[in-house]
Amino acid sequence: MSLLLLGRWLPAERDHWLHLLQSVMPDEQWLLAPPVNPAEAAEVEVAVVANPEPGSLAGLPKLRLIQSLWAGVDRLLQDLTLPPEVPLARMVDPAMNESMAHTALWAVLSLHRGFFELQAQQGRAEWIAPQQPRASEWRVLVLGLGELGGRVAQSLAAQGYAVSGWSRRPALLTGVHTLHGEAGLAEGLAQADTVVNLLPLTEQTRDFFDASRFEAMKPGASLVNLARGAHVLEVELLAALDGGRLSRAVLDVFRQEPLPVDHPFWRHPRITVLPHCAAQTDPRSAAAVVRANVLALRAGQPLQHLVQRHQGY
Amino acid sequence: MSLLLLGRWLPAERDHWLHLLQSVMPDEQWLLAPPVNPAEAAEVEVAVVANPEPGSLAGLPKLRLIQSLWAGVDRLLQDLTLPPEVPLARMVDPAMNESMAHTALWAVLSLHRGFFELQAQQGRAEWIAPQQPRASEWRVLVLGLGELGGRVAQSLAAQGYAVSGWSRRPALLTGVHTLHGEAGLAEGLAQADTVVNLLPLTEQTRDFFDASRFEAMKPGASLVNLARGAHVLEVELLAALDGGRLSRAVLDVFRQEPLPVDHPFWRHPRITVLPHCAAQTDPRSAAAVVRANVLALRAGQPLQHLVQRHQGY
Repeated sequence: MSLLLLGRWLPAERDHWLHLLQSVMPDEQWLLAPPVNPAEAAEVEVAVVANPEPGSLAGLPKLRLIQSLWAGVDRLLQDLTLPPEVPLARMVDPAMNESMAHTALWAVLSLHRGFFELQAQQGRAEWIAPQQPRASEWRVLVLGLGELGGRVAQSLAAQGYAVSGWSRRPALLTGVHTLHGEAGLAEGLAQADTVVNLLPLTEQTRDFFDASRFEAMKPGASLVNLARGAHVLEVELLAALDGGRLSRAVLDVFRQEPLPVDHPFWRHPRITVLPHCAAQTDPRSAAAVVRANVLALRAGQPLQHLVQRHQGY
Repeated sequence: MSLLLLGRWLPAERDHWLHLLQSVMPDEQWLLAPPVNPAEAAEVEVAVVANPEPGSLAGLPKLRLIQSLWAGVDRLLQDLTLPPEVPLARMVDPAMNESMAHTALWAVLSLHRGFFELQAQQGRAEWIAPQQPRASEWRVLVLGLGELGGRVAQSLAAQGYAVSGWSRRPALLTGVHTLHGEAGLAEGLAQADTVVNLLPLTEQTRDFFDASRFEAMKPGASLVNLARGAHVLEVELLAALDGGRLSRAVLDVFRQEPLPVDHPFWRHPRITVLPHCAAQTDPRSAAAVVRANVLALRAGQPLQHLVQRHQGY
């Protein structure tokens, strides 16, 4: 049996991953791809993947596990040649969870306490202290209560924010007012001062933030998108900001990445652009997560963080 | 007995305080000053003060408690006419503690995760993801472990940061590596990626951050000053930033406030100016704190948050 490491990345990045994976699994045989050598492909049982080219996971007859190094698997699931019976595991990396919670906390603190406005004021040498509502008076709605969304919601609640959390199906989360379904969504959007998006990208959630959702939000609310660019109709977001419906947006993800240099988001005074850096997988902790699933596979034990392909996450 | 409310503030601000104080202490007789009517002054037992004019607390023969509405009492203690035997209590307001912890967290997250640089990049439409060290790899030194510093240190530790805390005298704080004395200070400054200042302003701490302290800091470290402007020699801070010794400063307080419009801090690309808004007292929770001390005085029970005048805090 051998393990295949397959991604679209820079050689230095790939070598860094390989070095860390080898250091926690020193007895494994690793193959690097692309390209996959057809003779070697016959022996591959585990494919460890980072945004692989569509089609590159076909033709691996002994494949028993596809382990993604990234949390989001929406692009992988669009590959129609993905072997349908092979278990697919997402990356759930404690370091990435921490980073995501930190980015969400930074964005919510910045919005709640007016720090973005203060930076604009600094450019004009204006000394004006902002209003300072209590965190308990600032309601945050977290959309999506999976690994990342659930962690973000609880981290915000621990800072004293009034936190609601919405998911498609009912969920319970200590310290968080959980909502579900269409009625719950309408309630959550109407009450939130800040909406943090951590939904998975599926056919149901594509274009989630359109004009009608912005109309359903509390006037003057802000949006933090830490999930996928395709959740947001960008022209309609601009209209909601420019029409005064929304006060501000913090965006880490975009329909086209890198964001084109002539895109209006770059220069919009009430949009903060982050270059898809809200939460990166840390290869050191992620290597240990890969190892745990490889050991589970060998021992015939349950695999962790499997994707429910029919749900899309 | 009557209570005196005495401050330098706008009429609307004073009326807001008076309304809240009356709402939690409806049976008390409140006097407003300045000016203090000499006949009324004879009956004042408690002075509730916010940055009063020097001299205004002399001539109150029955005064038994001076309750500050602000946490910092350095300006009050410079008033040589302050009655020496009357207990002086600082404000310890849970809302202010929370705000200060939030501001410190926002500043440290911004520095650790490179969010200030990202905002500069946005202005140039540059898509470059920053390095993402783990919080546990980012050491923060908190100077001063009083109500505010202790809370800030523990809040940062709870987010996974490696936190050291320094105070003049030995202290213990769960989850924080505590240091004291000159040797502890040298160790703390040499190791910290970010130094957060929450020292009281005393004769010993005035001009604390001078060229020699900046030289003692880790090259490339950042400074967050949330305490007093007089802790920092501003020209030496500029030299440390421009000479590359320090990477960045986040400043909430200044030697002259409001910061003059022609001050070089406003336009320095690696200084973030906040208009003394890191943590404001919340009149709602602070009114309850005043009430508790007034009740304790009446009942002959210990007063809370008394200032040790000889220490200066």
